[in-house]
Amino acid sequence: MNIEMIRAARTRLEGHVRRTPLLRSAFLDEIAGRRVWIKPECLQHTGSFKFRGGWSAVSGLNAEARARGVIAFSSGNHAQGVALAALRHGVRAVIVMPSDAPQMKIDNTRAMGAEVVTFDRATEDRDAICARLSADQGLTLIRPYDEPLVIAGQGTCGLEIAEQAAAECITRADVLVCCGGGGFASGIALALQADAPNLRVRTVEPEEFDDMARSLVSGRIERNSRLSGSLCDAIITPQPGAITFPILSQLAGPGLVVTEDEALHAMALAFSRLKLVAEPGGAVALAAALFHPGEIQAEDVIVTMSGGNVDAAVFCLALEKFGG
Amino acid sequence: MNIEMIRAARTRLEGHVRRTPLLRSAFLDEIAGRRVWIKPECLQHTGSFKFRGGWSAVSGLNAEARARGVIAFSSGNHAQGVALAALRHGVRAVIVMPSDAPQMKIDNTRAMGAEVVTFDRATEDRDAICARLSADQGLTLIRPYDEPLVIAGQGTCGLEIAEQAAAECITRADVLVCCGGGGFASGIALALQADAPNLRVRTVEPEEFDDMARSLVSGRIERNSRLSGSLCDAIITPQPGAITFPILSQLAGPGLVVTEDEALHAMALAFSRLKLVAEPGGAVALAAALFHPGEIQAEDVIVTMSGGNVDAAVFCLALEKFGG
Repeated sequence: MNIEMIRAARTRLEGHVRRTPLLRSAFLDEIAGRRVWIKPECLQHTGSFKFRGGWSAVSGLNAEARARGVIAFSSGNHAQGVALAALRHGVRAVIVMPSDAPQMKIDNTRAMGAEVVTFDRATEDRDAICARLSADQGLTLIRPYDEPLVIAGQGTCGLEIAEQAAAECITRADVLVCCGGGGFASGIALALQADAPNLRVRTVEPEEFDDMARSLVSGRIERNSRLSGSLCDAIITPQPGAITFPILSQLAGPGLVVTEDEALHAMALAFSRLKLVAEPGGAVALAAALFHPGEIQAEDVIVTMSGGNVDAAVFCLALEKFGG
Repeated sequence: MNIEMIRAARTRLEGHVRRTPLLRSAFLDEIAGRRVWIKPECLQHTGSFKFRGGWSAVSGLNAEARARGVIAFSSGNHAQGVALAALRHGVRAVIVMPSDAPQMKIDNTRAMGAEVVTFDRATEDRDAICARLSADQGLTLIRPYDEPLVIAGQGTCGLEIAEQAAAECITRADVLVCCGGGGFASGIALALQADAPNLRVRTVEPEEFDDMARSLVSGRIERNSRLSGSLCDAIITPQPGAITFPILSQLAGPGLVVTEDEALHAMALAFSRLKLVAEPGGAVALAAALFHPGEIQAEDVIVTMSGGNVDAAVFCLALEKFGG
């Protein structure tokens, strides 16, 4: 991985991916005790930053691979990102999803033209299904984070942050990134190292699923003890990626960890103060900025709001619990 | 009123007012049967387009008037727009609000540094209170819509729409504007007449509060029979303005009218498909595009989403009723 791959991805993404703005609210600044800048990737196509990586991966295929198609496993944002990118390239997409995934996510993925293959989490092995379909049909597997073209796509968000920070005269900042496997964080970290070395990435995860924070402390890949049971489903992964961890180990500051309630509270504040819909996993970075100010070192803090694909019931739970 | 006043307002607003994007969703296009472009003024400072008019009015005062201060009456978006504009100019602002206005709106207006004067709707006359305070203290009254500087500020949104439509190669479009007194619609109409004459403003109002639509038909100012009892509170006004109506009468196409349920449904779709928070009155234009396609004439439709200042309870009502 290097910055040239991210710059090449930006060229491929140009005109297809939304350049999201950098927003602020005086009310949020007051809670945080510093200037809080929000990069709302919930406004990205498909409702999350994952469309960047999906577009980067599909557009980076050669003609032969495009003709055969792509395959991805995901119950959520990555599936939609890959599906829409494939649709717009006229490339066949097969998405492997657990049969108990929310019907709306299955429907959305199908509506974007993808073929959905479901599997039983209890009795079937996702990786084996993907490997078999990929081998039988010549489909190129697009991994959700441990994939250079995907990381390069996510990194284009970092290039935008560097430019927007310069335009706002932000010279030093902690850049809080919602973190699952680390594709978004490592792409942004590489972009900032090149274009804005005084902006430093800090990963943010939910309590009990803080594999990246613990790995950054110990210096080696640590696993989560469980893989379900969080409202922050979009950023729950077994462990940091083999490609992403070394990048973050070198470039990122200490990881931050927030509670699920802090994420819900941040969602309610994004509703009332920014008029934006964030999903729980997409609100952890804002939660860290607002409720863990003592752990942030720079004068300015930039937070990614990584996605907005949330069910109405969960959204209203956040509003009921934390006003709005 | 003329286009030069809008261009002058744009110069004063530059760097202070957010240039909101022009968004699209394939899901919404499919419902509407045509391309739907969304101008999300809910992302404007203070959560509505009213900040444009507030900034325009305050920045247009001479030094003497600034030193004395401004006064406005509003229970909602106009109050916040004027309050924040005054705060940032270092100008005193007095906002006259009904004593039964939602506490959050009163708190927000105070948090923006304004002095809030409350009155009893049943026994006191708002206009008389404003006139007295204005005369006693030399405060300049900033009317919510029948005020040239305010209309000029709202018109800057129309200049942006003209530029963004050209960039997207939109040659003909109906531009649906959420309409109360007509300040937003008339400002946009003047801007489009000058910069994009093939884009035509159409006002959109809620059922039973369709004074503008009826006035456009009859050719003279018609009143609403009642002034409360709508969730679309932000756009409920007694009648079209004396300045705004002649402009719209000349430049706007026939007005559209939607039901309250259609507005709530549009809010739910803005949540799920755009990740944006719209208030009921701010969602009527999207509702018209989605649910009244037969009344729209152009291939493309551009809708203003004029504000997002909605209580959690009303927002969740929309999501419960119309999925999400």
